Amino acid sequence: MDFASDTTAPAHPSVIEAIAAVNTGSASSYGADDVTARVRNLLADTFETNDFDFWICASGTASNALALSIMCSSIGAIACHEEAHIERDERGAPEFFSGGAKLRLLPGHGAQIDETALRDALAQNNPSFVHETPLETLSLTNLTECGTAYSVDTITHYAALAKAEGLNVHLDGARLANALAHTGATPAEMSWKAGVDVLTFGLTKTGAIGCEIIILFGQMRQQFDALKARAKRSGHMPPKMRFLAAQATAMLDGGLWLELAKQANSSAKTLANLLCAQPGVSLAYPTDGNEVFAVLPPAIEAKVQQAGVKCYPWPGGSYRFVCSWATPQSDLDALRDLLAEA
Amino acid sequence: MDFASDTTAPAHPSVIEAIAAVNTGSASSYGADDVTARVRNLLADTFETNDFDFWICASGTASNALALSIMCSSIGAIACHEEAHIERDERGAPEFFSGGAKLRLLPGHGAQIDETALRDALAQNNPSFVHETPLETLSLTNLTECGTAYSVDTITHYAALAKAEGLNVHLDGARLANALAHTGATPAEMSWKAGVDVLTFGLTKTGAIGCEIIILFGQMRQQFDALKARAKRSGHMPPKMRFLAAQATAMLDGGLWLELAKQANSSAKTLANLLCAQPGVSLAYPTDGNEVFAVLPPAIEAKVQQAGVKCYPWPGGSYRFVCSWATPQSDLDALRDLLAEA
Amino acid sequence: MDFASDTTAPAHPSVIEAIAAVNTGSASSYGADDVTARVRNLLADTFETNDFDFWICASGTASNALALSIMCSSIGAIACHEEAHIERDERGAPEFFSGGAKLRLLPGHGAQIDETALRDALAQNNPSFVHETPLETLSLTNLTECGTAYSVDTITHYAALAKAEGLNVHLDGARLANALAHTGATPAEMSWKAGVDVLTFGLTKTGAIGCEIIILFGQMRQQFDALKARAKRSGHMPPKMRFLAAQATAMLDGGLWLELAKQANSSAKTLANLLCAQPGVSLAYPTDGNEVFAVLPPAIEAKVQQAGVKCYPWPGGSYRFVCSWATPQSDLDALRDLLAEA
Amino acid sequence: MDFASDTTAPAHPSVIEAIAAVNTGSASSYGADDVTARVRNLLADTFETNDFDFWICASGTASNALALSIMCSSIGAIACHEEAHIERDERGAPEFFSGGAKLRLLPGHGAQIDETALRDALAQNNPSFVHETPLETLSLTNLTECGTAYSVDTITHYAALAKAEGLNVHLDGARLANALAHTGATPAEMSWKAGVDVLTFGLTKTGAIGCEIIILFGQMRQQFDALKARAKRSGHMPPKMRFLAAQATAMLDGGLWLELAKQANSSAKTLANLLCAQPGVSLAYPTDGNEVFAVLPPAIEAKVQQAGVKCYPWPGGSYRFVCSWATPQSDLDALRDLLAEA
Repeated sequence: MDFASDTTAPAHPSVIEAIAAVNTGSASSYGADDVTARVRNLLADTFETNDFDFWICASGTASNALALSIMCSSIGAIACHEEAHIERDERGAPEFFSGGAKLRLLPGHGAQIDETALRDALAQNNPSFVHETPLETLSLTNLTECGTAYSVDTITHYAALAKAEGLNVHLDGARLANALAHTGATPAEMSWKAGVDVLTFGLTKTGAIGCEIIILFGQMRQQFDALKARAKRSGHMPPKMRFLAAQATAMLDGGLWLELAKQANSSAKTLANLLCAQPGVSLAYPTDGNEVFAVLPPAIEAKVQQAGVKCYPWPGGSYRFVCSWATPQSDLDALRDLLAEA
Repeated sequence: MDFASDTTAPAHPSVIEAIAAVNTGSASSYGADDVTARVRNLLADTFETNDFDFWICASGTASNALALSIMCSSIGAIACHEEAHIERDERGAPEFFSGGAKLRLLPGHGAQIDETALRDALAQNNPSFVHETPLETLSLTNLTECGTAYSVDTITHYAALAKAEGLNVHLDGARLANALAHTGATPAEMSWKAGVDVLTFGLTKTGAIGCEIIILFGQMRQQFDALKARAKRSGHMPPKMRFLAAQATAMLDGGLWLELAKQANSSAKTLANLLCAQPGVSLAYPTDGNEVFAVLPPAIEAKVQQAGVKCYPWPGGSYRFVCSWATPQSDLDALRDLLAEA
Repeated sequence: MDFASDTTAPAHPSVIEAIAAVNTGSASSYGADDVTARVRNLLADTFETNDFDFWICASGTASNALALSIMCSSIGAIACHEEAHIERDERGAPEFFSGGAKLRLLPGHGAQIDETALRDALAQNNPSFVHETPLETLSLTNLTECGTAYSVDTITHYAALAKAEGLNVHLDGARLANALAHTGATPAEMSWKAGVDVLTFGLTKTGAIGCEIIILFGQMRQQFDALKARAKRSGHMPPKMRFLAAQATAMLDGGLWLELAKQANSSAKTLANLLCAQPGVSLAYPTDGNEVFAVLPPAIEAKVQQAGVKCYPWPGGSYRFVCSWATPQSDLDALRDLLAEA
Repeated sequence: MDFASDTTAPAHPSVIEAIAAVNTGSASSYGADDVTARVRNLLADTFETNDFDFWICASGTASNALALSIMCSSIGAIACHEEAHIERDERGAPEFFSGGAKLRLLPGHGAQIDETALRDALAQNNPSFVHETPLETLSLTNLTECGTAYSVDTITHYAALAKAEGLNVHLDGARLANALAHTGATPAEMSWKAGVDVLTFGLTKTGAIGCEIIILFGQMRQQFDALKARAKRSGHMPPKMRFLAAQATAMLDGGLWLELAKQANSSAKTLANLLCAQPGVSLAYPTDGNEVFAVLPPAIEAKVQQAGVKCYPWPGGSYRFVCSWATPQSDLDALRDLLAEA
């Protein structure tokens, strides 16, 4: 029973097959290959626009940090939730890639930024006051770190607030697929149509080996050359790019990425129901995507630990259970049986 | 006829097979998996020691820069050849990862550092003179950027000179396999036994998709935690590490990496002979590895260009032809036929 | 009536005289001069120890950031109060000088870190968890940004808590003189005896032109060469150091610095009393030093603004009034008269 | 006999007097004071333009690095002479302030960039080649590190070459006064009229305590806010700015700065003549300003060393003797007598 993370899962077989399929003959290095060209077409279809540039990156941390490094100068600040991945789980990557930008942390339930806190931060922002670091970027995360989904309306609303103060808007979409599967929104609605300037479009947790796509929309495309230069100097411009691109094609082709996210969400819903059927169990946050945050009574907590169920204690006292596209029904069954004993 | 680079080649089929083979069930993230553990054993055998730590990284640029970032402080300098990859082809990665260290460029024929220049630089080094940035690290490259191989004796000698002045020694081994295939030296002899503290052990150009191994020997192991932290914050700690590790196992198992390098070197020797058989063709540097640098008379230059042979004009007036494990005999035959027409 | 800041005040005449006095003949550059040597002796007397190294710097922001840059690596974090000068008023200087370290912000009334918050942060600190940036340094400020003074006991207690978790301890003493004048503690008691490893000993706000002294105690002296190198590359190693040193001698000689702080504190106490004598006025924080934070009823607020009294609106709704050594009695009298009208 | 540096000299008495004169009453912090306003008027007169912004800084190293940090991005490179102060004597300050930009070193006699080398570097510059760091800025120095003066024509010519390739132009004028005194050119002719975008206008070596002025001309004024932010976060925005400004007014008023430079140049000419009158002495570079670089025969070298004459051995085998505004005639006489004995 491994619910530790969606990154402990294997890759979807289609990904491996796509890698094997492109492993023939010579191909131009650094993204000037046919497979990478196909990714562009697939992204244009997926996001219903051609007004974008993109860069494929094996790392989610690097994708976020690279994106932010072209959105915020070294003398600016990035507003984000205090539990955001870029603050809590990336070992200072945004500060490193930006050359010393600051993160301004905002509170809010379920890892969603509280609107009042956002408004206050924006209202106090004063770029002409040289002593304090001004906000230049708002970074949102969907799914959030607590597994909740922002609605398209909220993303749109927050982006508008930020833009009114001259900020640009980043969306960390490491689990965007899960948020879309939950809300039913289209990729376009949740990104550029909502005011998102740069999207980190994650496919790793969805089912790839390591494949995230940084997508620059509209005006932000002017920073594409800078993005590539920064990718190069940070070691995120692999010569044999076709293999990264192959992962993207496998995931995007026919909407596999969204199907896998639906599967993961569905497993999480089942898991949440199993847990909630137990007396004394409650959810810390709604299960919008593929992550369940459950507060367990001591007896169940002990049972779960004794059985070696892999899950992750979370700040605030709950446990995080993550499902992936590959979560086996047998793991869910085993958990059901375990709980039944309790 | 693609002799543009060893990075335009596909990966060896064993690499793809190894990736497919590990794609089953869940595995701990971030290197705490069985495949990564196997890499350790293979490296211990390959380098005949257990006194090492290692980190697998998809990028050669990042591997060099990460290695250097734990060997040189932000207020120190790195001595290297003026044509070194870290100076010429990494877009300032060492400066970025180190937080502003300087590169001190040394001359020398065939991209090998001239001994007198090295001695002079070391003699002038004065860490107590606060105004000038002192050398902290010597970075060597083998194969060099001009396709020549340092001997074990030279590496050993230069390392001793550097250590006598308190520097530590880095070896950029993006094409170490080719240098070993040429010299017949063992991996141990060319690395820790020669005084190398940190090795960037490249497998990408040899036949992997993207797989370099940063190896810390002896005392430098004390920096391993710092290396991991820096890998994390630069996006070089992939959650699904098993797939990187699988590439390494495929290459190291049974010495495949060395066999592939021998094959590439052999193709390059054939190619060099084909070219040198033509009147007026000369080699700019000896073909020690898998790269041929040839000065072409105008007629042959024109022929080669018209035929669309992929090769790379090199500073100084020669053309670089690179062979890989996958260079097809048909490409060599086609080149022979083309030259025969001339 | 200028209560805007203690930095709008002139320098004490002794400082100007000392500068004029050293302006004769040639002197070695970069601190190898007799005046700087005298500063060492004065500091040894002032702090009752010889186990220290020091660097004089014209800037408080730079002094803090330089100090922190030798106390916290680029991959570490600094715990400080959420209203600390290093977070709020230095435009990201700690992040810049450290190469990307993070600040971990802790709450607490009166800009003093809450003990429970400190304990929690220390308890959660896990340097072996590579994903999150571990705390390496605790930075305290005395006087705090709200004009309150930490006691020697609290500094000692907090330092002990931090050291037990492997952190080192920085004290931002931009207004240390005012804190000492209030508490009656000796410089030694409030610094190295309390567990402070590096002190930013401010003399600018006390009465110099621009003169702060970074003092490294005990083990931290091993970082002195690194400090000088970092001072050099950030432009804080002036060739004509004797003029900075002269400011320090003027202030330290005969304890002038402490006398001036007592004078400033006394003026602030008078000012606080004037304000509190008015119905409806309350102090947001106790007036421990030379800063008064007063909540003004609308009538008085209007009166003060109409009269052009220079003071500074503070987050939370109070006004900050600052006195310096040079606050004229006439300004205090004028304020009394103004309030009497109200 | 102290010819070690122009920074061992005292400040001109007018500078001290100016500092004393402004030390009265309260003044707005951070440059919003009357004295700083006067500097603007004096600079407008001196440089015959109002199309500029400026920032006063106590440090020459910081002034250069701050200037370069707004002229070159962290992913760009700066072309300069291989003996330039920014490369050799600032401990990596440009790399630090820019966030990792590279210096591209060009050769040339007398620390003046060779035109062919400059043309070659510009011709090879390829900003669209992502792997190599492209030049963004040309930094010239006048006086050079070898005491020679670029003519206005050469500055103008080099600036035009650089601008044709999209670079902007920085002039390190730590000893600009000496170059102007030598060439007879006006400040305007040697700066913005010649194509200089940002000038580091040094007054410290000329006779101030520590006072350099970063001047942004024309289009570069758009970076003024960024410059201030970077000055703030590097600790080069002193609250009591009036004292820095006072130094500038003292030096600029009535052209004192130029008079002092003429005096220093004249002393150096006398010194050069004294040395050259000795058999076997030759000058390594012409004495255009206040620095003499002399190759001494062994007998004279020994004499000079025994007498404790302060001068500085220079790379290449000469000795550097520096005169300042304050070089006493008695030192020149004493040197004459010493040489007469030889």
